[in-house]
Amino acid sequence: MRARQFFITTLKEAPADAEIVSHKLMMRAGMIRKLSAGIYNYMPMGLRVIRKVENIIREEMNRAGAVELTMPLLQPAELWQETGRWDKMGPEMLRLQDRHEREFAFQPTSEEVVTDIARQELKSYRALPKNLYQIQTKFRDERRPRFGVMRGREFIMKDAYSFDRDVESAGKSYEQMYAAYRKIFDRLGLTYRAVAADTGAIGGDRSHEFQVIAETGEDAIVYCPQSEYAANIELAEALPLLAERAAPTQAMTKVPTPGKTACADVAALLGTALANTVKSLVLATDETDDSGAIVKSTVWLLLVRGDHDLNEVKAGKVEGLKNGFRFATEAEIVEHFGCKPGYLGPIGLKKPVKVVADRTVALMSDFITGANEADFHIAGVNWGRDLPEPDLVADIRNVVEGDASPDGAGTLAIQRGIEVGHVFYLGNKYSKAMNATFLDEDGKPKFFEMGCYGIGVTRILGAAIEQNHDARGIIWPDSIAPFTVAICPIGYDRAEDVKVAADALYADLTAAGIDVILDDRGERPGAMFADWELIGVPHRVVLSDRGLKEGQAEYQGRRDAEATKVAVAELAAFVKARLAP
Amino acid sequence: MRARQFFITTLKEAPADAEIVSHKLMMRAGMIRKLSAGIYNYMPMGLRVIRKVENIIREEMNRAGAVELTMPLLQPAELWQETGRWDKMGPEMLRLQDRHEREFAFQPTSEEVVTDIARQELKSYRALPKNLYQIQTKFRDERRPRFGVMRGREFIMKDAYSFDRDVESAGKSYEQMYAAYRKIFDRLGLTYRAVAADTGAIGGDRSHEFQVIAETGEDAIVYCPQSEYAANIELAEALPLLAERAAPTQAMTKVPTPGKTACADVAALLGTALANTVKSLVLATDETDDSGAIVKSTVWLLLVRGDHDLNEVKAGKVEGLKNGFRFATEAEIVEHFGCKPGYLGPIGLKKPVKVVADRTVALMSDFITGANEADFHIAGVNWGRDLPEPDLVADIRNVVEGDASPDGAGTLAIQRGIEVGHVFYLGNKYSKAMNATFLDEDGKPKFFEMGCYGIGVTRILGAAIEQNHDARGIIWPDSIAPFTVAICPIGYDRAEDVKVAADALYADLTAAGIDVILDDRGERPGAMFADWELIGVPHRVVLSDRGLKEGQAEYQGRRDAEATKVAVAELAAFVKARLAP
Repeated sequence: MRARQFFITTLKEAPADAEIVSHKLMMRAGMIRKLSAGIYNYMPMGLRVIRKVENIIREEMNRAGAVELTMPLLQPAELWQETGRWDKMGPEMLRLQDRHEREFAFQPTSEEVVTDIARQELKSYRALPKNLYQIQTKFRDERRPRFGVMRGREFIMKDAYSFDRDVESAGKSYEQMYAAYRKIFDRLGLTYRAVAADTGAIGGDRSHEFQVIAETGEDAIVYCPQSEYAANIELAEALPLLAERAAPTQAMTKVPTPGKTACADVAALLGTALANTVKSLVLATDETDDSGAIVKSTVWLLLVRGDHDLNEVKAGKVEGLKNGFRFATEAEIVEHFGCKPGYLGPIGLKKPVKVVADRTVALMSDFITGANEADFHIAGVNWGRDLPEPDLVADIRNVVEGDASPDGAGTLAIQRGIEVGHVFYLGNKYSKAMNATFLDEDGKPKFFEMGCYGIGVTRILGAAIEQNHDARGIIWPDSIAPFTVAICPIGYDRAEDVKVAADALYADLTAAGIDVILDDRGERPGAMFADWELIGVPHRVVLSDRGLKEGQAEYQGRRDAEATKVAVAELAAFVKARLAP
Repeated sequence: MRARQFFITTLKEAPADAEIVSHKLMMRAGMIRKLSAGIYNYMPMGLRVIRKVENIIREEMNRAGAVELTMPLLQPAELWQETGRWDKMGPEMLRLQDRHEREFAFQPTSEEVVTDIARQELKSYRALPKNLYQIQTKFRDERRPRFGVMRGREFIMKDAYSFDRDVESAGKSYEQMYAAYRKIFDRLGLTYRAVAADTGAIGGDRSHEFQVIAETGEDAIVYCPQSEYAANIELAEALPLLAERAAPTQAMTKVPTPGKTACADVAALLGTALANTVKSLVLATDETDDSGAIVKSTVWLLLVRGDHDLNEVKAGKVEGLKNGFRFATEAEIVEHFGCKPGYLGPIGLKKPVKVVADRTVALMSDFITGANEADFHIAGVNWGRDLPEPDLVADIRNVVEGDASPDGAGTLAIQRGIEVGHVFYLGNKYSKAMNATFLDEDGKPKFFEMGCYGIGVTRILGAAIEQNHDARGIIWPDSIAPFTVAICPIGYDRAEDVKVAADALYADLTAAGIDVILDDRGERPGAMFADWELIGVPHRVVLSDRGLKEGQAEYQGRRDAEATKVAVAELAAFVKARLAP
């Protein structure tokens, strides 16, 4: 491609609403242009990257035996009503009416439509397994769209759905997709981790997120440098930090802690470690009758060590909290604890509550909790002696850096990640809701076992940039760069030898199937170099009259500190040798 | 591709709502599946064709210097309000609101958005000319969607928009697109005509439709077999059929024609040729004041020969009718003619009307018209003698087969076509409305001269099938067939020699870059052949145990009446030689 013929519109400054580096750089590099909040034009430069990402995904999906189709953007409400999601999906799902006032959703995802296809077209076990995918625009009406393509409203996703005759076969389909995703993210040239994720109501261990590692990532991901263990923070198991409970050594003492509601402040005041304190969190569950009216509420006290944080996903798996919980109201707290939040604890309750201790808390001794009296805590508390054993002991906290890895292989580390892919076993949740069956070998109808597999195509651009940039701009991996090589001739339109050498190199590399941009715009060298560094082309060749007189050109990789002089005769071969295989 | 791994779902019967052959065959071949009225899943088999069509378009657009981008599906109302089209577009434009009640259109076309991009990004004449295109989903909320992909609601279009600094340069951009379209439709393997089309309010001669020839086409296209002349019926110029007006030979006579309102019936009753009668059509125009209230209406009488039809587009170009007209009300007709429709004519009016005679009518003599009295006509009418010369003479009729070609090269023929592409010069209509300017060489802002260029991607599938099918199914051109070659082994899973030969041919052709499907489903030969004939794969090879024992296989082109026996040793070379280059 020649630059004049292409569409290059770089900006000196990013617009004010671009908060994160990937958004800023995509705007400055002319990859995207905002049309409305969270809705972007994919400009020619950005579209080239999108297409390369799509092609890598498509090739690996096809190789894994998946079959591409395209499902419509507008999906009739009736299908979403079959699964109950028409009502359950919040305002993120964009609903609209056609001229005949029929209701539609602008697809945020396509489980309903693909299950509808399966129940019509996959009649026999002989047609299974089948994995159908599409690369298609999605819409999620985010309340506050931001961060460019990282949290846009209109975006491109690859979504795949597998249909199997039984759980075992579904497991194989899941493993195939997991392997295909590894290949995809390897080929995308990104540093990433596949981390185990929560499976929610479906259960089982078949849910993995693919996280691109970046300091700016929204998600905390937990891994063990000494092993393969990796999980997102919601799922990562926290082992007890104590091997066993030590015998009491202190008497229980009520201590004044005026105004000190935070564990850290209490520990500081009492001159002890934060790890000797216990944090109280009060939840509530409701029982309802058939009409939905609340007939009984139960108050729960969850205890985690002062230096730990409650993990709400884990709390949601505790027996009794599985069907949903809420934070207790202040009235409920006062009624049960006789005290407002800030000085709560498990001792001296007004009314019984269900006490759930984190695994570590259950093994603590001589610990400090709130006294259920304003401005007082109790120190030297011991289970069994000062209060009954907890009703339940469970893993209800987030792991922290340095925790033992649950696989026993070492200690855990935490890094930030950007979720760009997710593989998920769905079981028969959708097939059952939509009565989607096939005839099995025994002649009986059975529900499909399903899996779903998403990759955020446009989000990958943002994630790749968050991971790969410097002060000058983007640094694309070779495989998804809008152009692999930029040829920058100085004086293309006035120095004949420069033009001849640039054209020759362009022809040579293009003939070799390399994606080259020849900058024939006649920009000053500084502006030209700045453009290609901002845009993030990974390989650059500079040709100048002066250099050519010595038979030399300059090559510089986007991460190289300096240019390398290369003999013109060897230039094409030199560049080719530098490209990723 | 192996058939088991792919997704093949043919149907014996098309659904009842499929009226035309392309819709029926696309349903039966499993190319599309209806999700809602006018909204289809593009199934894997159909998507392969779509992708091939898209790729041919993309390659030729790129070759012609156009640059691809993607504009969003949801476009904010504000942009459409700038051009006034938010109000002008009818209910075909799907409007919706996001969660913040901001209004959007689901793009039916993208002039507004692309002009918005141009005014922001193309600041200087140095950036021009520029042609931006996208291949993107569109939505038009047809009142009565039908005919499958031929008139769907959600469909795929390639839309391109050119920006030039002046009219001359815009003309070159237009010619480039016209040439690119020729290449595209040539490569698609379709029989088509590029026909001149009406330019409406823009004027000029830069509007061409690309029409795929098919008996079932909605459009009448006019061409001269002896020359390059081709135009759609709306535009095709009708020359006068008479060289000059003959002198009167008959006296004017009022003749009873009870119940005969149609010219054909009158001619039959009077024993004369239909070509001696004149048909009266009554229009009206309104003048309004600033508030839009009608202050004056004018009634028009348009006269065409009895065997001709009024062309409303041409009527709309007559001086005085250019700003819009309507058919006159019965009250207006009675007021001016003293008679209800059926016996109207230019003689004996109650109130003056503007008389517009078609070129041929103006040269007629001794003709027959209505008498403005129920059940009577007047014969032997002559201009000048019996009534004044017409106020205006104009080309206001459709051409008919056998008319002289306007280029003087022969006589016109008419065939049916399906419009699949359109190139159109827009001038500065949108750039002016949206104040989209660039700085010209003289430092002054100028409006972009624009053109727009559409191709109906999904519609091409329907058009290709309407043109290329037989009783057994679709006959795809090689370039867009879902698979180019179908290998049909008989007994693939039981006859080892068949499996070996089929696998070898599959490997050979695949290695040569040919798109092959190997039918490993184990279907009976009849069912297998019927499937591939229905789906329309253009080349088929049958391998059987019996044939192989004689060292032979069978090749059959989709249009061949019979199979050809081919020695297995020469099979791959034989098939390759049969493929379109």
